[in-house]
Amino acid sequence: MDPKYREVPARRAKWRKRIYIVIFGSGTTAGKLFDIGLLWSIVLSVICVLLESVPSVHAQYGEELLRAEWVFTALFSLEYILRFVSSPRPLLYAKSFFGLIDLISIIPSFLSLYIVGAQGLLVIRVIRLLRVFRILKMVQYIGESQILLTALSASRHKITVFIGTIMTLIVIFGSAMYLIEGPQNGFTSIPVSMYWAIVTMTTVGYGDITPLTAAGKILASIIMLMGYGILAVPTGIVSVELGKASQRSFAHAACRRCGEALLPVQSRYCFRCGEKLGE
Amino acid sequence: MDPKYREVPARRAKWRKRIYIVIFGSGTTAGKLFDIGLLWSIVLSVICVLLESVPSVHAQYGEELLRAEWVFTALFSLEYILRFVSSPRPLLYAKSFFGLIDLISIIPSFLSLYIVGAQGLLVIRVIRLLRVFRILKMVQYIGESQILLTALSASRHKITVFIGTIMTLIVIFGSAMYLIEGPQNGFTSIPVSMYWAIVTMTTVGYGDITPLTAAGKILASIIMLMGYGILAVPTGIVSVELGKASQRSFAHAACRRCGEALLPVQSRYCFRCGEKLGE
Amino acid sequence: MDPKYREVPARRAKWRKRIYIVIFGSGTTAGKLFDIGLLWSIVLSVICVLLESVPSVHAQYGEELLRAEWVFTALFSLEYILRFVSSPRPLLYAKSFFGLIDLISIIPSFLSLYIVGAQGLLVIRVIRLLRVFRILKMVQYIGESQILLTALSASRHKITVFIGTIMTLIVIFGSAMYLIEGPQNGFTSIPVSMYWAIVTMTTVGYGDITPLTAAGKILASIIMLMGYGILAVPTGIVSVELGKASQRSFAHAACRRCGEALLPVQSRYCFRCGEKLGE
Amino acid sequence: MDPKYREVPARRAKWRKRIYIVIFGSGTTAGKLFDIGLLWSIVLSVICVLLESVPSVHAQYGEELLRAEWVFTALFSLEYILRFVSSPRPLLYAKSFFGLIDLISIIPSFLSLYIVGAQGLLVIRVIRLLRVFRILKMVQYIGESQILLTALSASRHKITVFIGTIMTLIVIFGSAMYLIEGPQNGFTSIPVSMYWAIVTMTTVGYGDITPLTAAGKILASIIMLMGYGILAVPTGIVSVELGKASQRSFAHAACRRCGEALLPVQSRYCFRCGEKLGE
Repeated sequence: MDPKYREVPARRAKWRKRIYIVIFGSGTTAGKLFDIGLLWSIVLSVICVLLESVPSVHAQYGEELLRAEWVFTALFSLEYILRFVSSPRPLLYAKSFFGLIDLISIIPSFLSLYIVGAQGLLVIRVIRLLRVFRILKMVQYIGESQILLTALSASRHKITVFIGTIMTLIVIFGSAMYLIEGPQNGFTSIPVSMYWAIVTMTTVGYGDITPLTAAGKILASIIMLMGYGILAVPTGIVSVELGKASQRSFAHAACRRCGEALLPVQSRYCFRCGEKLGE
Repeated sequence: MDPKYREVPARRAKWRKRIYIVIFGSGTTAGKLFDIGLLWSIVLSVICVLLESVPSVHAQYGEELLRAEWVFTALFSLEYILRFVSSPRPLLYAKSFFGLIDLISIIPSFLSLYIVGAQGLLVIRVIRLLRVFRILKMVQYIGESQILLTALSASRHKITVFIGTIMTLIVIFGSAMYLIEGPQNGFTSIPVSMYWAIVTMTTVGYGDITPLTAAGKILASIIMLMGYGILAVPTGIVSVELGKASQRSFAHAACRRCGEALLPVQSRYCFRCGEKLGE
Repeated sequence: MDPKYREVPARRAKWRKRIYIVIFGSGTTAGKLFDIGLLWSIVLSVICVLLESVPSVHAQYGEELLRAEWVFTALFSLEYILRFVSSPRPLLYAKSFFGLIDLISIIPSFLSLYIVGAQGLLVIRVIRLLRVFRILKMVQYIGESQILLTALSASRHKITVFIGTIMTLIVIFGSAMYLIEGPQNGFTSIPVSMYWAIVTMTTVGYGDITPLTAAGKILASIIMLMGYGILAVPTGIVSVELGKASQRSFAHAACRRCGEALLPVQSRYCFRCGEKLGE
Repeated sequence: MDPKYREVPARRAKWRKRIYIVIFGSGTTAGKLFDIGLLWSIVLSVICVLLESVPSVHAQYGEELLRAEWVFTALFSLEYILRFVSSPRPLLYAKSFFGLIDLISIIPSFLSLYIVGAQGLLVIRVIRLLRVFRILKMVQYIGESQILLTALSASRHKITVFIGTIMTLIVIFGSAMYLIEGPQNGFTSIPVSMYWAIVTMTTVGYGDITPLTAAGKILASIIMLMGYGILAVPTGIVSVELGKASQRSFAHAACRRCGEALLPVQSRYCFRCGEKLGE
């Protein structure tokens, strides 16, 4: 929850203040119940979308699922309106990440009223799919995710270099494999060979395309053993960054003088300003 | 072994005390022999259940396996009765985790006497299957597992956040793949597409469902490379927690003079200030 | 960029100096634009080679791709000439790693003019393939790669020992599997069995060759579980080395007063004794 | 090389001493050349065994390979005799690990002279297979392997607990899958289901057996996600132990007073005897 929504201005109407505390806050009992209810609604609405795609379920419960769909759309529309109205800065909420996600997840159902026809139905499904983004809200509720994000964010540059190296290797190995095996063995073009190289290096190994010649098998073996070693790199990167992020999170309270928060756990003096840290 | 069973009340009959020491303790020679014998009985009884399911073995040795089954059931029943009788607090034992497992692993065989018929046989097998839970007892005997459990328990919250993120990605990628490939290419519904996404992201890659269109192969490649990076996260989490758990278990109390906390386990002098460490 | 090219001799002609700064340097706006333009040209030219191999694209856009191919060849030839001319030591540039790569990536297109015929075309493609090495230049532009290379270089010896052990296991397991399953189950020779062992130990698992006998499945299970444990070794090696490389790059010189060596990179005061760190 | 072979008794004949230094030692030029020559002979003899199994190679070069086989056998026999004769304690050498491997790797060729016939040939191949154990000698020559062995040896107990847990999960999941999918979907018995569970949990995923029912796919998804998390444990264990082994190897020279060699890198006092460590 953004801190700028915390401080509700005193001039606000009392009922808007109350709605704000329930919807945006999670400190009160009502606020907690609202959050849990919302979470379950999101999960259930996603499950409905998933079930609707199963042909046998659609044939038998299509009607009921459509009705449930509209109930969820109504609920989420109401929630959006309440959030917009009760927010101290409505436009800021509407333009925030979750404000946009909230809006996008209710639009597809309304669109399906105006766009009709066989072809159109498929398009609607594509938009309706965005509904599942609502599940992303769940991340918001779990504080522990911060440490993971810090570690991933710190590893970002290293992982970019790594992905770049992998892409280069995939282009080279894909091209080599296309020349060795050729279209008659399933490697119909360099992009298809690159797809095979990705399937192999990530150790997924579907087996829809496999080398058939001796030379192809030798090169594939080299790629696999190389992938084996390469797999170690992102793991090592994240391990190291997680270790650092975790160590930092074990730190003292922030320094009283300069506010530095990332103090190593054994610190007796702030490493930025030299302030002696209290007991 | 729960410590509350250690202190045998003095008022107990001598033979119960002796049985208790043999069955629950592992300090005496008899106690050790009992434990090893029990362990092998569990392994053998599980192997019997496994072999019985092989058609060719069942046809030839069905009679013998049934007899062995009853011998093991008799042995384990006797063990359960002895445990119950000799325990200082029988009901507490019966309600403990391993007390319940002990009971559940002998019930199916007795049930098979009363529930008969073709359909019933299958049901009995389901219950008999629980017999394999007995193998869980083995964990109890190895002390080293504590450090692993500490590390996994400490990573619990982070792994939950991680699994949540993975589930969200699986729903999104599964839906996207369903829309791209469609039922005609094996992606018959969103749940089936999600199964494919799990098979792909975990790098299992059966190859029973594979993308056939160019767009599907591109999305699959992105999912695989993403899975590659994501695979690093749980490994990093467990590495860091294991490092901490291992460090903790290796560390003495801190040095009294200089406060150094990371002393190697065999230390008799602080490696920083030379202070003799106390007993 | 090699530092020996930085110091442009004062006796050089002014225009050569200017070209040198733009092409080899990246400090000026023109230099940055040149680098970014070159990067995109490399990516686009590689994409053209990839697309040309797709039969349907080749049939429709073969003419355009050939023309694009020649435009890129002209551009890269011009770049090579300018680099050669403006370099303070042209021969040293020509013999450097990227000098050779620059040359190799333009040769295949010119060769295709003289070597003709069906068989010859295939050979040209092989040489043209080297064009993708140009993508390696991208690594040069990202400074973060240094830490990864340090870690990999430090792990080199350990990884060699590890690969040696893996190769030994692959020979032993491949031979054993050949004897157990035999040619009638797809394991046609020991090298093919070794290919299967590599596919299995690296957890790729195509499924093009799978054990069919009970003994083969048992051995395969042992190999897989062993591979599971072995997979941990390279990851552990790289994690440890990355941790060290990362720690080193983050550390100041040690504190002069108390000797603390693991100071965070932004430290201005020692976190142990409060000493102000020198410049 | 075992240190007990280092000190050659003075009473030995001069030529035996010289042979000993060349064969067992690697300090002299002759000793180094012998080691490298032996290494290449082992690799070449293994390649010959591998090639002989390829039908097309056997048909064309069977004669030459058989001759090469006998040349290598003669060389290795000579080497064995020289090692035995020149060793200060011949029987101790013969009973040592590499003494036995040396003997085992030359026996199969001689055995093939007396055991003939179609069935017999296959048996000989099984014994000849042991020849590949000779490759294990290579490990001996690379000193870097010590740190890996220390780390693996320290993780031994934890990995045993881990493998035990995995085996339990495989029995439980294998049985559950057998009951859900049944023999008609390829899960013909519990052992076969366990094989499938191993293939799935280790993320190999051949795809020779795959779940076909909805319930089977759901259970398989759970197993895969669990395997994803479990994969992290051995990696974490090895990372931590490698980190420790590597830290230890970075230590000072051993303590002058008590000889303790595993001193932490920042030590100023020996943690065993309190001796102040020199500069």
